[in-house]
Parts: sequence; C-alpha cells; structure tokens
Amino acid sequence: MSEKFLTKRRVEFCETDAAGIVHFAAFLCYMEQAEHEMLRSLGVSVMETQADGSHISWPRVRVDCEYLGPARFEDILDIEISVSRMGNSSVTYKFEFIHEKTVIAKGTVIAVCCLLSPGTPMKSVTIPKKILEGLRRFATTDANGNAGS
Amino acid sequence: MSEKFLTKRRVEFCETDAAGIVHFAAFLCYMEQAEHEMLRSLGVSVMETQADGSHISWPRVRVDCEYLGPARFEDILDIEISVSRMGNSSVTYKFEFIHEKTVIAKGTVIAVCCLLSPGTPMKSVTIPKKILEGLRRFATTDANGNAGS
Amino acid sequence: MSEKFLTKRRVEFCETDAAGIVHFAAFLCYMEQAEHEMLRSLGVSVMETQADGSHISWPRVRVDCEYLGPARFEDILDIEISVSRMGNSSVTYKFEFIHEKTVIAKGTVIAVCCLLSPGTPMKSVTIPKKILEGLRRFATTDANGNAGS
Amino acid sequence: MSEKFLTKRRVEFCETDAAGIVHFAAFLCYMEQAEHEMLRSLGVSVMETQADGSHISWPRVRVDCEYLGPARFEDILDIEISVSRMGNSSVTYKFEFIHEKTVIAKGTVIAVCCLLSPGTPMKSVTIPKKILEGLRRFATTDANGNAGS
Repeated sequence: MSEKFLTKRRVEFCETDAAGIVHFAAFLCYMEQAEHEMLRSLGVSVMETQADGSHISWPRVRVDCEYLGPARFEDILDIEISVSRMGNSSVTYKFEFIHEKTVIAKGTVIAVCCLLSPGTPMKSVTIPKKILEGLRRFATTDANGNAGS
Repeated sequence: MSEKFLTKRRVEFCETDAAGIVHFAAFLCYMEQAEHEMLRSLGVSVMETQADGSHISWPRVRVDCEYLGPARFEDILDIEISVSRMGNSSVTYKFEFIHEKTVIAKGTVIAVCCLLSPGTPMKSVTIPKKILEGLRRFATTDANGNAGS
Repeated sequence: MSEKFLTKRRVEFCETDAAGIVHFAAFLCYMEQAEHEMLRSLGVSVMETQADGSHISWPRVRVDCEYLGPARFEDILDIEISVSRMGNSSVTYKFEFIHEKTVIAKGTVIAVCCLLSPGTPMKSVTIPKKILEGLRRFATTDANGNAGS
Repeated sequence: MSEKFLTKRRVEFCETDAAGIVHFAAFLCYMEQAEHEMLRSLGVSVMETQADGSHISWPRVRVDCEYLGPARFEDILDIEISVSRMGNSSVTYKFEFIHEKTVIAKGTVIAVCCLLSPGTPMKSVTIPKKILEGLRRFATTDANGNAGS
C-alpha cells in the first residue's frame, strides 16, 4: 500500500498573469518545489556537494501538465505527489493540484539522477540506495521492478 | 503543403538556474512567446480588448516538453512551430528547439480560444475565421477537418 | 514602540541562476510576498474585489535593494519588515534578509494604494482606515504624521 | 561627449501580473538583459569560462527602480543605458524605459566584476582593460577618474 506526499502552496502575486490567473509555466515550478520538499522529508539533500565539488542533480527529461481550472492570487493549493515509476536512474512523479476539493491541474515529471562535476558534462548515475528506499514509500503498486533508466 | 513558423531566441541569464543551464520551466515561456510572435505575424492581436472591456485570450489546457539536451546562457535557439490540430475552439502547436543544428527540446501546447469579460467566468468560443485562416498556413496535413473541442 | 513583522522563506531552485546563487530580481518577489503575508496577518485581503468588479491594488512606485551576500538553493532566509513612512495613499516598507544571523540583503519598497476598475485607469486613493491602523503596529517612530502622497 | 546604448524590448505575457501590467520585478530582468546586450555589442563575452573552469561574472550590489507609468503586454519599450560611474571593479549603469515617448521607468544597477572559480568564494577583481575601454563610450562626463571599488 502506497501513500501520497501531501503539501500546500499559496499562489503568489508574481505568479499570476494579465488574464488574472496563475501563469501556466508556474505550475512546473510548483511541481519542482513540491518534489524538493518531498525529498527533504526523506532526509535527502537535493543538491549535496561532494568533496570534489561535484553534486547530484535531478534534471528533467520530460514534463506534462493538464490545466483543468484556474488558480488565482492567494488561493491555497493542495499538492499530492506519487511515484509512478522508478528506473535505474530515473523517477516518474505524478502531481495533482487541488483547490477547494476540485482538481485544477495534473502533471507528470520524469527526472534523472545525474552527477554534475565542474568542467565535465553532466552524466546520469544509479539512484543512491537511500533515496530509492525513501521514494518507495510514495510509489504506486506498479512503479517497481522496471529495468532501464 | 505546410510550412513552419521560424523564430530565434537568445537565452537570458535570469532563465538559467544553479545547474548552469536553462531552467526547464523557461521552455514553456519560450513556447508562449514564439506562439504570440507567430500570431502577430498573422496580423492577429493576441489580447485585443473589445469596447465592453472583454478580450480574446488563449489559456492553455495541456502542455508537454521533452528535454533532449541543455541550453546555456547566451545560446541562440532556433524555434520551429507547426499546427498539428485545429478544433472548433482549440489549437495544438508543436515546437522544436534547435541549438547548433541539434534538437534540444520538443514541446506541445494545446490552447483554447476564450472570451474574458470582467466579472464573468472565462468561456471558450469558436476561433475567429481570420485567425483560423492564418493558422492553416502552418498546419500539418492531418491538422484539419477535426470536429470537437 | 514598534515591532517588526517577521517571516521566513526558503530559496527555491527556480530562483537561482547560473552563478549558483539567488537571482537578484528574486529578492523583489520575496519582498512582495512578505508584504502580502504581513497584510494578511492584519486581516487585510490584498486584492479584495468589490461588487462593481473594482479592487484595491498596491502598485510599487519605487524599490531598491542592496546585496550584501549571496543566498543559495534551500537556504532559509529570515525576513524582517518595518513601515518607515505612511502617507495618505503610500506606504514605505523596509526589508532585511538574514541568513544564519548575517544580513545578506536590505530593501525598500514604496507602494501606493490604488483602485483598479475595469476599463478605467488605475488611480491612487486614501489608504482605508483599517489597513492604516494595522500598519501602524509595524511603523518606526518617525513614520507617522506625514502629509502628502 | 558620451552616447547612450539603445535597445528595444517587447513585453511578454509571462512578465505581466493580475493587475494587467508588467510585474515590477521584471524591470530588473529587462535591465540585466539590456546590460548584457550592451556588453556583447562591445565584443565582451558576459560569462567567458577560462581554462581552469573559472569565469568573470557581474553580481549586482545595488539596484533601484522608479515606476512612473505602467507597461502592458506587447508594448515595445525603448531602453537607454548610460554608465554613470566606473570604479576599479564596479560599474554603475543608469537605465530609462520609454514607451511611446514617455519615460515609464528609471533604474540604477551597480555591478561588480568578480571571478567565480569552482569551490572557492566569489571575489571582486579589477575590470579587464578591454571592457573598461568599451564602457567608456557610454560613460557620462562625470563617470571617470573615481578611485575605489
């Protein structure tokens, strides 16, 4: 049985646009912020610098977002995250944004665990065991046992 | 025979993040800006205010983006847009971002033609004929004749 | 004796830039968000819509910011606000950003109380009494009794 | 006799807010982008990486901005830059934003020439001679001959 990671987010004024609603690109930042909060809740430092100056980073390889209703300045959004797939080096997150019990947006993010060292190109690495175990808590039943990145 | 709308965009510093590359959410703004430029090229004012204070707006109902390679500060990106579907009130745009002849990102945006009047909820309307005719120029062969949305 | 309004803010990844630190423009958003939080703490709705569709808004007429040290991803910043001047329709806020007991930035915002009605130009109005009384709590000793804007 | 560096900028939709105008923080990004464009016009690479992975960067130590009138989506702004002071390692830029012959905003940026090396704290350095000579072209008559930072 899996659980969802739950957090909240208030819409800030700088995130709205001249249509009077949250700009659609802001939802991608909301997703990233919620993901980072979830990782912190697992005791994982999102951007831990190693002795050699390198660090783990999670670039996105794919995102999507469906907009089902508007969000406005000062609205408080409930955000739910689950892990729908875990590969060797990649994680697929599913997000739901809920305002006053109505789902107003749904999104997907595929992030890849990468090592960033000064002066060398970013490269994907196997997700550290500690992180993998933490993520399993939020994994849907079909998220495990997948091969490949 | 369709053509693509072509434009260019230089990466600005405020669009980069601490991983040293363009933040993934910035690509959604790039798509929107390129779309608006395309509409302007068709003689369409993107947010024309009517006498009663109402205006046409194009909220997004769905976006996706695949990230195939990084973009960095001051990179010049070639952006190509085509129209892959035209419905009654919705348009589906396909975007490709190219840096030095390599596709670094691909995206899709579904926008809906809406009327925004002060004090009333936004509602979708039939795309004005002038805009529809303009968009046809960039439509792929299978984009037309679709009913619905 | 005045007090300061205190709040906290965690640096999000999308607020950093390729120099590895918070982008300087993000501090203006931090100031605005802290100001709105302070107004909410006073029971003031920042953008309350009236029956005729008009609402109070607080456009800025002047801002400044001094950057004394960097802030980085996931840093938690303490933000302190005081009101250094109250005019008829304008308020001057002073901000301090503190990270691990060091002031890393200082800013000033002058906001003007305006009425925004659909279809008419924005115009400045006298600050409603309820808001003025709330703000007084955070006013420095020399902030009152000023005439003018 | 000095001249001003002139450029133009169209307001993008994502830069507006729910008050229907350009968000005040966006002007800081406009200033930075115009400054980078000016530096490029002088043949200066803004973020040139050296062989050891270090590079010159220009963090801001102070900014201010006065807002005299609104800018709206699709407005084309004329931006004028002059150099009002050149120190050993710092430059003070003055900006004016003009829309349809009216100055709608004025700003100041003080940037410091710094060397960023991986794993070491940022430190200010003397502005390279080539850049200093380029900037002199846009310097107001009282900008030179100053000692200090």
